[in-house]
Amino acid sequence: MSVVRKACSMFPQVVGFSKRNMSFKTLDPPTPLAAHGIHVFYCPDAVGIVAKLSDCIASRGGNILTADVFVPENKKVFYSRSDFVFDPAQWPREQMEEDFLKISQTFNAIRSVVRVPALDPKYKIAVLASKQDHCLVDLLHGWQDGRLPVDITCVISNHHRASNTHVIRFLERHGIPYHCLSTTKEDKREGEILELVQNTDFLVLARYMQVLSRNFLRSYGNDIINIHHGLLPSFKGGHPSKQAFEVGVKLIGATSHFVTEELDEGPIIEQMVERVSHRDNLQSFVQKSENLEKQCLRSAIRSYCELRVLPYEEKKTVVF
Amino acid sequence: MSVVRKACSMFPQVVGFSKRNMSFKTLDPPTPLAAHGIHVFYCPDAVGIVAKLSDCIASRGGNILTADVFVPENKKVFYSRSDFVFDPAQWPREQMEEDFLKISQTFNAIRSVVRVPALDPKYKIAVLASKQDHCLVDLLHGWQDGRLPVDITCVISNHHRASNTHVIRFLERHGIPYHCLSTTKEDKREGEILELVQNTDFLVLARYMQVLSRNFLRSYGNDIINIHHGLLPSFKGGHPSKQAFEVGVKLIGATSHFVTEELDEGPIIEQMVERVSHRDNLQSFVQKSENLEKQCLRSAIRSYCELRVLPYEEKKTVVF
Amino acid sequence: MSVVRKACSMFPQVVGFSKRNMSFKTLDPPTPLAAHGIHVFYCPDAVGIVAKLSDCIASRGGNILTADVFVPENKKVFYSRSDFVFDPAQWPREQMEEDFLKISQTFNAIRSVVRVPALDPKYKIAVLASKQDHCLVDLLHGWQDGRLPVDITCVISNHHRASNTHVIRFLERHGIPYHCLSTTKEDKREGEILELVQNTDFLVLARYMQVLSRNFLRSYGNDIINIHHGLLPSFKGGHPSKQAFEVGVKLIGATSHFVTEELDEGPIIEQMVERVSHRDNLQSFVQKSENLEKQCLRSAIRSYCELRVLPYEEKKTVVF
Amino acid sequence: MSVVRKACSMFPQVVGFSKRNMSFKTLDPPTPLAAHGIHVFYCPDAVGIVAKLSDCIASRGGNILTADVFVPENKKVFYSRSDFVFDPAQWPREQMEEDFLKISQTFNAIRSVVRVPALDPKYKIAVLASKQDHCLVDLLHGWQDGRLPVDITCVISNHHRASNTHVIRFLERHGIPYHCLSTTKEDKREGEILELVQNTDFLVLARYMQVLSRNFLRSYGNDIINIHHGLLPSFKGGHPSKQAFEVGVKLIGATSHFVTEELDEGPIIEQMVERVSHRDNLQSFVQKSENLEKQCLRSAIRSYCELRVLPYEEKKTVVF
Repeated sequence: MSVVRKACSMFPQVVGFSKRNMSFKTLDPPTPLAAHGIHVFYCPDAVGIVAKLSDCIASRGGNILTADVFVPENKKVFYSRSDFVFDPAQWPREQMEEDFLKISQTFNAIRSVVRVPALDPKYKIAVLASKQDHCLVDLLHGWQDGRLPVDITCVISNHHRASNTHVIRFLERHGIPYHCLSTTKEDKREGEILELVQNTDFLVLARYMQVLSRNFLRSYGNDIINIHHGLLPSFKGGHPSKQAFEVGVKLIGATSHFVTEELDEGPIIEQMVERVSHRDNLQSFVQKSENLEKQCLRSAIRSYCELRVLPYEEKKTVVF
Repeated sequence: MSVVRKACSMFPQVVGFSKRNMSFKTLDPPTPLAAHGIHVFYCPDAVGIVAKLSDCIASRGGNILTADVFVPENKKVFYSRSDFVFDPAQWPREQMEEDFLKISQTFNAIRSVVRVPALDPKYKIAVLASKQDHCLVDLLHGWQDGRLPVDITCVISNHHRASNTHVIRFLERHGIPYHCLSTTKEDKREGEILELVQNTDFLVLARYMQVLSRNFLRSYGNDIINIHHGLLPSFKGGHPSKQAFEVGVKLIGATSHFVTEELDEGPIIEQMVERVSHRDNLQSFVQKSENLEKQCLRSAIRSYCELRVLPYEEKKTVVF
Repeated sequence: MSVVRKACSMFPQVVGFSKRNMSFKTLDPPTPLAAHGIHVFYCPDAVGIVAKLSDCIASRGGNILTADVFVPENKKVFYSRSDFVFDPAQWPREQMEEDFLKISQTFNAIRSVVRVPALDPKYKIAVLASKQDHCLVDLLHGWQDGRLPVDITCVISNHHRASNTHVIRFLERHGIPYHCLSTTKEDKREGEILELVQNTDFLVLARYMQVLSRNFLRSYGNDIINIHHGLLPSFKGGHPSKQAFEVGVKLIGATSHFVTEELDEGPIIEQMVERVSHRDNLQSFVQKSENLEKQCLRSAIRSYCELRVLPYEEKKTVVF
Repeated sequence: MSVVRKACSMFPQVVGFSKRNMSFKTLDPPTPLAAHGIHVFYCPDAVGIVAKLSDCIASRGGNILTADVFVPENKKVFYSRSDFVFDPAQWPREQMEEDFLKISQTFNAIRSVVRVPALDPKYKIAVLASKQDHCLVDLLHGWQDGRLPVDITCVISNHHRASNTHVIRFLERHGIPYHCLSTTKEDKREGEILELVQNTDFLVLARYMQVLSRNFLRSYGNDIINIHHGLLPSFKGGHPSKQAFEVGVKLIGATSHFVTEELDEGPIIEQMVERVSHRDNLQSFVQKSENLEKQCLRSAIRSYCELRVLPYEEKKTVVF
C-alpha cells in the first residue's frame, strides 16, 4: 500500500545515484563573506522551538549547516545545538545576540549561548597542575599548535620540581604567567588562586592534586573541568591507577568531568579506555593512563569550547 | 564585553545544577496515546526547510524528540532526520503522509520518507547466502529475538551443504521459504531470483558469493545491502581475508555497503575492525572476520530500517 | 663498539629480506601424524624451569610452536603456557602425563595441566541462567557451530518464561537436559543444583541472578565463571546497567570473572566496553550491554578451555 | 579418567586461592644488582632451541622474566624474545655477547641480538620530515620526556616554513643539528642525506614526502621506519586522507611500516584506526589522521627499540 511504496521510493536512488549527484559538482561556491556561528539552546520543552530558532536564522539570511536536537524521553526539556553560516554585514553580531535573547525569553531558556569563533574573544582559562605535568604540557602544545581555541591567562602549580623547568621556560617564552603556590593541608591558598583566576571563563585542573573547597567553587562561580586518571565511578579519590592495578582490571581508563562539591562525582564529559594485561606493571598502567588522560582532557576542553556540552539532569551531560 | 558575559551565563549552572533539575522529576508523564514517527528528508538546500518541517510537526500537535540536520560544506544539499511523538487520533497516518508530501514538493525533495514503526508494515527482505552461513544464521537470530525489525520473505542459497540443515529446519519451523538455486558460471539463475524477490523492499547479501549483473540490479530496482569480509577499499573481490593475511595487516575489518554495478565499490554504510597479530593464522583471521561481518551487517540493516542511511555524493552515505 | 654493531646486524635484513625468506616456500610439510598439545605451568620461580620443560618436549620429538613465559616483577612465581606438536605414536598420551608430572614435582608446581584437544574429552560444563537468556542462547550457538569446545551436560534455569520456549525446544532437539528450578529467598535449591552439576569440570553463570552460597562454592569445588553486565569494580550487585545509566557514564562495559565468596569480586578474566551517549536510554544501554556480555562471556570460556587463564595474586588472573 | 581429573586439579585453586598466594607477600626482594637484558632470536626451526637459550641464561645465574616463542605453522623457522634479569658482575656484557653468539652459530641464526638498555648505548636515529611537522614534534616530546629511548643525531627537513621555527628553536636549545635540504624532482640530495645519517642505527621518516631511491636504501643499509597516513594496503601514495575522504570510508587509519623498494609496501609494524562519519570534512579527516600517525609512529619506534620487531616471510613482521 501507499505508505510502503513511498518508503520504497527511497531505494532505487542508491543503485546508480551517481548520475543524480553529478549535479552537485556544478554548484556555485558559498559566499566568501560567510562567517560561522554556533548556537546552543536548553529550555523547558514546548511546541515550535525548532521552528522559531530556524526561522530566526533563516530570516537573517543565515543557513543552518548542522542542527542537533535532543529531547530526553519523559523529561520535559529541550536541547539543541546548531552550526550556521551567515553574512556579518547582513546580521551584525550584536543583532544576533538580541535575536537569540528574544527567543530565549520566549521559551524561558535555562541556557542560550551563541558564539562566532571568528569574531568573539577566545575563552580565557587558567590551568592548575601539580607534580605530574603531562596534561599541562599537552595542553600547552594544543594551545601552541592552535588545536585548543583558548587563551591561557596563567598556569598555577602547587608543586615545584626540577623537571618542570622546561615547562616554565616555555611559559616564559610565550609570556604566560606561572605561579607556584605550594599548598599545605592547612593552607590551600584558595584566596590567592581565586585572585589569579578572576577573569577566566573556566578552569582546567590538569592533574591538580588538591580538592577545591565548596567555598572556592561558589566564589569562582564558573565551570571547572577536571581529568581523573580512572574510569569513574570506579576508583574515586587517590591513586586510581594503583587501585585499578590491584583489582586486576583488563581495561584502564580516564574520565574528564565537571568539578562539583562531591569529590569525583561531577557530570562526566568524556571517557576513554585502553587494554591492560598481566604483563603490565604499575608503571605501564600509569604510562597508558597518562596517554589517555591527555586525549580525554583535550577532547573535553575542545567540546566545551565548541558549545557541545550541556548539563543533563542531576549528574549527566549532553555532549553534542 | 556582553557577548562573553552571555557565554559565561552558561557556566555557573553546572556547579550545583542539581537543584535546578530536581524539578524534572515532578513533570507529568507523556500522553499514553503517543506514537513514534521517523522522518527523513533529502533535498537541494534552501532557506527555511527546518522551519517548515518542524512547523508541520508542531501544527499537528506532534513533538520532535530528536532532529539531526546535515548540510555538507560547499554542497547545496540538505539532509535531515527527525524522531517525533504524535497522537494518531489527532494526526492520522494518511494525513501525515500528505503533509510531508506537500513539503517534499515545495523543496523538490530527492527523497522524503516517513515511517511509524507501530503502524507501518515491516520492511520485507529476502536474504541471499552461499556456503558460509554465519551471517544468515545471525540475521535469523536477530529476526527471531526481534532486534531486526524486518519480515524475511525468503532465503535463497546457491550452495547446499549438510551443515545448512539446521538452518533449513529453522526456516521450516518458522515458515520461511527456502530456495536452493545452485548457480553456474553460465547460469546465475537471476531470472528465478528476481521472481522470488518481487515483493521485497530490499535485499541482503549475507556472504552471497555471486556478482549480480547490472541487468539484475536494474530490474530489481530496490536497494541491495552486501557484507564484504574486508576493509574496503582494500581487498576487493575474492578471498579478502586471505589477501589481508598475506599482506600482514595488523587490523582486519568488515564492510557493509550498497551494491552497485562496480564490484565492491558501492557506498559504505558501516565498517568495523579487530586487531590481528603474527600469532593469527588464516583460520583465526577468518573467525575474527566472521564475527565482524555479523555485527557489521546487522548494524547496517538496523540503521537502514530506522531510516538513518541516505546517499551522499557519488559513492558515500550519510548515516544519521 | 661491537655490541651496537651486532645490534645493527639486525637491520639490513629487512630491506630486501624477500630473497632470504623465499626459501621458506620450499620447505617440506609438517608430519601428517602431528597432534597438537597445550601445557600450562605455574610454580614458585626457580632457575632452569624453561630449560626443563623444553627439554622434555624436545626429548620426545615434540616441537614447541608457541611458548609464553611470565614471571611477575618482585614475585617469586613462574607461569608458562606452551603449544607444541608431537607424534602420539612416539609420545603416548599417558607417557606425556607422566613426564609433565615429574617436572611438576621437581618444581613443586601449584598447577600443571596438559591437554591434547584431539584426544582428551571436552570439558563438561553446566550453564545456569535466569530470565535473560541472551547469553545462554549465544553459548548454545557457540556450542552448535563448534566455536565453544565444551560438552553441555545440562542447563539450569531458576526462572521459566514463555520466551524461553524456543531455547527449551533447542535443548530437546539436541538432547541437552533442561531443569527449571524456581528459587525463592528461602530456598535457593542449591542441593538440587549440586546434584545436577556433579560431573562437570566448571560452571557457567549466564546471567544467573542468584548469589551462590559459600557452602555451594566449597562443595562444588571447581571453577565458576560469571558474566557481570557492568565494568567491575564499578556497578557491583544488581541493575548495573541502570546504575551506569544514572551516573551518566560515556562507556558501558561487561566483565567476565571467576566467582568467589565476595559478590562480584572474583578475579577478572575479560572486560569489554562500548560508547554510549545522552541519546542512549536505559533500553539501549541494556541492548548494548547484552551484546558485550555475550562476547565477553564467550571469550572467557574459550580462553579458559584453551588453558590460557591462571590465578595471579589474590584477585588477578594471568590470561595468556 | 586420570587426564581429565588432572585437568580438574586446576580448578579448585581459584575459589579461595587467596590463602595460597598470601605467601607471595613474604618473599625476599630481587637482588638490587640485577640488570635487565633483552634477547631476540630468529633462526631455522630445530629441536631444543628454547632449551639451549634458557640453559645459557640460567647457567650464568640469569633469570627469565618473560619469554615469547613463535614458530609459524608449516614454516620451518623459529622466533623468540626474552626479558631476563642478571648480575653484570657475574655475567659481564662481553661474555653475554659471546655466549649468545655461540648459540646463534649453533642454530645458524638469521638474527640474534641482545641488549642491556642500562649498559648499551641508545640507538642513534635521524628524523626526516617535510612540511607537516606534527610527527616530528611528537617524537621530540617523546625524546624529551624519555619515553622514546633514542639519541636523535639530527633532523633533516626538505621543506622550510615559518611554522617550523619553534621546532628549530627547540632543536637549537637541545643541541640537535637541523638541516634543511630543499629537494627538487631532479635533485633529491640523497648524497647529502646519506652523509648526515652515516652513523645512525635506523632512520625515521616522520611524514617525509619524498620517495627514497633504491640506491639510497642500499647504500644506507639499515632499517627505515615510515609513517603512512592511511590504512595500508589501501590508499598508497599521495594524499591518502583525501583518497579515504572521497571513498567515504567510516574508519580512517595510519600505518607504520619498514621502507622497502616498493612504495608503501614494506612490512607493516603497527596500524591504528578512528571512526569518521559524514560530519567529518577533509580537514577533520586530516586532524584525526595526524593524531593516529603520532601514536602509530611512536609505538613502532618503541617496539623496534625494545627488540619486539622481526621480519616474517616476504612482507610481514613479527611484533612480540
